[in-house]
Amino acid sequence: EGDAAAGAEKAARCMACHGAEGKSAIPLYPHLAGQQAPYLAHALHAYQKGERSGGQAEVMKAFVAGLSDSDIEDLAAYYSGLKP
Amino acid sequence: EGDAAAGAEKAARCMACHGAEGKSAIPLYPHLAGQQAPYLAHALHAYQKGERSGGQAEVMKAFVAGLSDSDIEDLAAYYSGLKP
Repeated sequence: EGDAAAGAEKAARCMACHGAEGKSAIPLYPHLAGQQAPYLAHALHAYQKGERSGGQAEVMKAFVAGLSDSDIEDLAAYYSGLKP
Repeated sequence: EGDAAAGAEKAARCMACHGAEGKSAIPLYPHLAGQQAPYLAHALHAYQKGERSGGQAEVMKAFVAGLSDSDIEDLAAYYSGLKP
């Protein structure tokens, strides 16, 4: 279980694409607010492991490269807790 | 732009995992309700093209194999129009 407050501090890097409150203003980028935390964590790990290609996958891979497992859990907890 | 009403008729195959109203009861499966339609369409095409692996990617690939581009646009319109 991640720490949403810690995730909020780590989320600055995500806001340009996914919006300040996890609701993206760019139609090709997903809303994250209220999403399932385990799914969000799975998706971040998938980008790290190169299990996703095409679209913005390479951009995402660069953004998540330096994240630890607990960073990922915290970000997932933060975004899943936001109002969709 | 997809046809949400047509998408509703095509969504029966998605409900077991993503919920009757696009809100999944299974934490590892994403909520689809209210998600960005272009992102949903992109994700479905990514599964079709094998651009996603790991996790449930193979299951998703089987589910979307037979979908046409307009099926995908309709499903994306349907789910993005649901209340998150």
